[in-house]
Amino acid sequence: MIMKLRLLKFLMLMLGLAFFGVSGAMAQDVVEEVTEAVTEAVPFDAAYGAFMETQGSFFTISNLWLLISAALVFVMHLGFSTLEAGLCQSKNTVNILFKNVFIICMGVLTYAFWGFNAMYPGDAWSIGGVFAMGSWFDVDPTMELMSSEYADYTWYTDFIFQAMFAATAATIVSGAVAERVKLSSFMIFATLLVMFAYPVTGSWEWGGGWLNDFGVDGDKEFIDFAGSSLVHAFGGYAALACVLLLGARKGKYLDNGKVRPILGHSMPLATIGVFLLFLGWFGFNGGSVLSADPYMVSLVFVTTALAACAGGLGAMFTSWIVLKKPDLSMSLNGVLAGLVGITAGADTISPFWSIIVGLIAGIIVVISVLFFDKIKIDDPVGAISVHGICGNFGTIVVGICGGGFFMSQLIGTIAISAFAFIFSIIVFGILKVTIGVRVSEEEEMGGLDIGEHGQEAYPDFAPDTK
Amino acid sequence: MIMKLRLLKFLMLMLGLAFFGVSGAMAQDVVEEVTEAVTEAVPFDAAYGAFMETQGSFFTISNLWLLISAALVFVMHLGFSTLEAGLCQSKNTVNILFKNVFIICMGVLTYAFWGFNAMYPGDAWSIGGVFAMGSWFDVDPTMELMSSEYADYTWYTDFIFQAMFAATAATIVSGAVAERVKLSSFMIFATLLVMFAYPVTGSWEWGGGWLNDFGVDGDKEFIDFAGSSLVHAFGGYAALACVLLLGARKGKYLDNGKVRPILGHSMPLATIGVFLLFLGWFGFNGGSVLSADPYMVSLVFVTTALAACAGGLGAMFTSWIVLKKPDLSMSLNGVLAGLVGITAGADTISPFWSIIVGLIAGIIVVISVLFFDKIKIDDPVGAISVHGICGNFGTIVVGICGGGFFMSQLIGTIAISAFAFIFSIIVFGILKVTIGVRVSEEEEMGGLDIGEHGQEAYPDFAPDTK
Amino acid sequence: MIMKLRLLKFLMLMLGLAFFGVSGAMAQDVVEEVTEAVTEAVPFDAAYGAFMETQGSFFTISNLWLLISAALVFVMHLGFSTLEAGLCQSKNTVNILFKNVFIICMGVLTYAFWGFNAMYPGDAWSIGGVFAMGSWFDVDPTMELMSSEYADYTWYTDFIFQAMFAATAATIVSGAVAERVKLSSFMIFATLLVMFAYPVTGSWEWGGGWLNDFGVDGDKEFIDFAGSSLVHAFGGYAALACVLLLGARKGKYLDNGKVRPILGHSMPLATIGVFLLFLGWFGFNGGSVLSADPYMVSLVFVTTALAACAGGLGAMFTSWIVLKKPDLSMSLNGVLAGLVGITAGADTISPFWSIIVGLIAGIIVVISVLFFDKIKIDDPVGAISVHGICGNFGTIVVGICGGGFFMSQLIGTIAISAFAFIFSIIVFGILKVTIGVRVSEEEEMGGLDIGEHGQEAYPDFAPDTK
Repeated sequence: MIMKLRLLKFLMLMLGLAFFGVSGAMAQDVVEEVTEAVTEAVPFDAAYGAFMETQGSFFTISNLWLLISAALVFVMHLGFSTLEAGLCQSKNTVNILFKNVFIICMGVLTYAFWGFNAMYPGDAWSIGGVFAMGSWFDVDPTMELMSSEYADYTWYTDFIFQAMFAATAATIVSGAVAERVKLSSFMIFATLLVMFAYPVTGSWEWGGGWLNDFGVDGDKEFIDFAGSSLVHAFGGYAALACVLLLGARKGKYLDNGKVRPILGHSMPLATIGVFLLFLGWFGFNGGSVLSADPYMVSLVFVTTALAACAGGLGAMFTSWIVLKKPDLSMSLNGVLAGLVGITAGADTISPFWSIIVGLIAGIIVVISVLFFDKIKIDDPVGAISVHGICGNFGTIVVGICGGGFFMSQLIGTIAISAFAFIFSIIVFGILKVTIGVRVSEEEEMGGLDIGEHGQEAYPDFAPDTK
Repeated sequence: MIMKLRLLKFLMLMLGLAFFGVSGAMAQDVVEEVTEAVTEAVPFDAAYGAFMETQGSFFTISNLWLLISAALVFVMHLGFSTLEAGLCQSKNTVNILFKNVFIICMGVLTYAFWGFNAMYPGDAWSIGGVFAMGSWFDVDPTMELMSSEYADYTWYTDFIFQAMFAATAATIVSGAVAERVKLSSFMIFATLLVMFAYPVTGSWEWGGGWLNDFGVDGDKEFIDFAGSSLVHAFGGYAALACVLLLGARKGKYLDNGKVRPILGHSMPLATIGVFLLFLGWFGFNGGSVLSADPYMVSLVFVTTALAACAGGLGAMFTSWIVLKKPDLSMSLNGVLAGLVGITAGADTISPFWSIIVGLIAGIIVVISVLFFDKIKIDDPVGAISVHGICGNFGTIVVGICGGGFFMSQLIGTIAISAFAFIFSIIVFGILKVTIGVRVSEEEEMGGLDIGEHGQEAYPDFAPDTK
Repeated sequence: MIMKLRLLKFLMLMLGLAFFGVSGAMAQDVVEEVTEAVTEAVPFDAAYGAFMETQGSFFTISNLWLLISAALVFVMHLGFSTLEAGLCQSKNTVNILFKNVFIICMGVLTYAFWGFNAMYPGDAWSIGGVFAMGSWFDVDPTMELMSSEYADYTWYTDFIFQAMFAATAATIVSGAVAERVKLSSFMIFATLLVMFAYPVTGSWEWGGGWLNDFGVDGDKEFIDFAGSSLVHAFGGYAALACVLLLGARKGKYLDNGKVRPILGHSMPLATIGVFLLFLGWFGFNGGSVLSADPYMVSLVFVTTALAACAGGLGAMFTSWIVLKKPDLSMSLNGVLAGLVGITAGADTISPFWSIIVGLIAGIIVVISVLFFDKIKIDDPVGAISVHGICGNFGTIVVGICGGGFFMSQLIGTIAISAFAFIFSIIVFGILKVTIGVRVSEEEEMGGLDIGEHGQEAYPDFAPDTK
């Protein structure tokens, strides 16, 4: 009986909508009432139809944009693969590609089984604002529709977009530990990092945790639009921890104090990687608007592109001055530095300031790469500098020219970086003292491709032995 | 006079729409009446304007999504090119790239001249539900609008999306026959396959043919959402037929019964290929929803990604156990196996089951590749296993966990595979006894790049002759 | 007081909209009145909300499509990078990649600081219809909304889409001067070309300049839909000027009158480049519709793809006949020729004629490449033929089968080509007599990678010295 009454109410509301074409604030109320009535009384198909009828258009566009963004973020995994492969030696290429294929496969699946619900707990916190248990992401069909109550996209869209982000953290580590890490240990570490650690810091901010609560009613909340800290600094500091435990590649730092550069084997692969990362970033940042709002998405495209280009030029000319030669690898890292730098404030920093932010990030990354080499922290692809240091910078800068509060930004980026670092020190440390984290010296010399996979990347071509 | 009356009727309808903002079921009727009135009486521009006014929004979004999907499916052709090139020897690279450039060019054009109308005959069957004659795809402008009667996209969108699919079948064959097929014979075969054979089986299902008629009023119809059978098994069995007629590469199966692996020359190219295929599959499956429906498209993205990732892990660990080493090529083929496996039921299989389907496909592909090598069927890229066997599996599995009927699925996938196999045996067989299908032994040894094209892929680098 | 009255007027209009659901021609007037009232009286957020309420849907979709198109055009820069790198020698690869990274970074930034406003001056011409001063592109937030008065996308979207186009011109030159141009001179030239020259010819047509005024009230206006002349012929003729001043690569044209081919070092890179350019062209042409209009965008996708495919086949078979071998590089250039050829009329040429146009462009490009080699104009990648000659052809053909006026098309393409040529002769000429434009003979022999960057592209592999 009640159900029939509700259905009647619903039909009357629909009729009202149909005949009066109500819109704006009025429609909003009506829609809410409809949605409420609908969820309780009508089956999924009818509810879905009613929903599409009343507010489908913007929802459909936004949902589509988030899905396309997910595909663009997926492209970043290819970008990371070719960048990392290009900047390392040919004898470790199969190993690097294998790790990257593993990371995306493992990352999406663990995010389905644990990460997504751990990162977005709703009210289901285990420790309020700090930690939530994860679980299988999927829900019954009616729930997917209900995402419209809080978002302009479906539950499934939310999952796949965030899942593509999740694996990124481990990918960053992969680059820094390349050419000497033991495959099985890395696979265990990457799984634990993506499955358990990443959702924790993610929940602090995007899941509505404690970083949202600074100030009165969160008016001084920590801001990290698309993850300068939550994704990049997180990955960068996890990488730093692993590199400290792992040590440098053999022959990199000579006894006489000199640094012997170990050159990447394919600059085209590295360049392809950076272009694809730049491309993917339009989805990474653009999708983080979480709707297809024309003003916001276009602003984010502009700030992202300007920062990337300024970062590229910044690193290009800094390297030209410092190293006396215009350096391609540095320029490529400069583009990435600009992208990482703008990520936290891509929606609040103005186009002009985005150029400044990118330019500074591009300068920072060159100095940082040289600095880490000086203190003998061996990072083959510059991941710690690009993601860690520029991730910190990008987060803090929101407190200067992006509408955030400086102290909130500082606390947030330190907390996230510290958590990633400590988690990694502990987990990778345990792996080190148990099964070991480094390949044998012979395997390192002969290459991980033969050592771990029994497979060469370029069997038709003999490496240069000059 | 009649025309004037119709125009008046149309104007009154428009007025009604404008003032009462009718929507929902009522609007649907009105729209149909308008469309009918419009087509007969008013010129294209007015009809188009009226159409966009009344139901343009969802149509515009869906149309855009299909076009973006067409672009994503186009990316798959690049993916196939680099995957195939990477998994073959450097001396045959130019030949492989040339074939792939030819296939996309030829595929789109023959689909325009014959395939599209042969595959979607409407009521114009030559043999009811089994075969239709093709013709030039284009129509007069008013017809394009009228696609809105049956679909959420224009006639042109329909064509370009389907055209991008069509060439895929020949690409699959290209991989299996690589490194010894005669270029001209392959070009003739590929043209006949794409132009005449592909639309036939396509019409059986997507064109509304006999596979739609199982059961009472088609209630037990064959289901193949995006083409596990219609595209992949079709290509895979055509490939099997060609390989049987062509024989193995020289030196692959030794007289003493041993198998000598012929290694692919560039694992980065192969990996780039698989990532791009994964990316393109979001359009292949996601676009096959044939609208931008938020629930359906997002579900398809999720099932597609989960199956791909599970397939990758499945093959990774199966190869680790069976071959004692974690094998990159197997893992890459595992990702593709998962994708092929989910393609028939990406819209009806739940996320959880999509993981199971992908995992099994990943295991199957490793066993299948090893099996075909055992029985001396030489398939350089594993196309028969990935597309043929996993295409069968993916289709049948819809009869188990995807809402389809087991017997319908079984009959459908056998019928399609058999047609592709028999067509290929006949056509490729005729080519074999007439102009020949295989290059000379000297050319095979020296490479098809020099033999067929007089051009090397990497003239700056000498191949390793160790 | 006046402001309050305006607000009242605005509210009444909104109420009218809400209750009567007015649409079509009536709504258009209302919307204009609202927009006007809104801009003057209400703050940005309210104005934006009102705008989205009344006509947001099509605007949001179109805006999104333009942004996605911008991302696709960005992909073209990667395509150009790998195509150029692949078609040149391995010893110049780092240099080529560096130039391409520089061009995109510099291009987007200079377009922000000068180009955008110089190209789209509105009424702010310095010399009516011929030249406008540039300035920083950004505007205050309310202005961005107002883009809706003239377009279906925001100010920011307009900028980023056009910025991605701008850098293309310099990229075209980069290919033609590769392997012997001095890096610093090229960087200066490219900056001046993109910043100052490109917006001038751009303003003549897309900025509403003198090329729009042919005939009575512009009824015989010059037509260049997406830039066969404004982008491609412009780049092609700038390239021709530079090559004339620069001279051929050492060892290309021998004293005995023979031509020694200097082979590109990686056909996979070149092929990847062309596929990515094809992909990006869907955004280049498809986005130039400047909305998501379903009929227009889908037509443009079809004509673009058909012309590209016909161009590929045209060059393939022409090279087969002329050179006796099916040539991969020629086929790749044929695809590009077809794309350049259809670009001026992708929205007005019918699908059938687009095939003819593409086919002819594919034939032309082979003849043109051979011709330029005959007269000893050394263009390593065929850029002058692909972009210059086919750009001219594509523009003129709109006067034959694309609804344009032959003489208008002829005058337009000559004017644009001539301007690019003369500007380049002067600027590159000044560079030649001052700091020089060519590397030393030793550097050319040893490669620009070591000479300019001190870095090898493939340090693990020794080049073949057979």
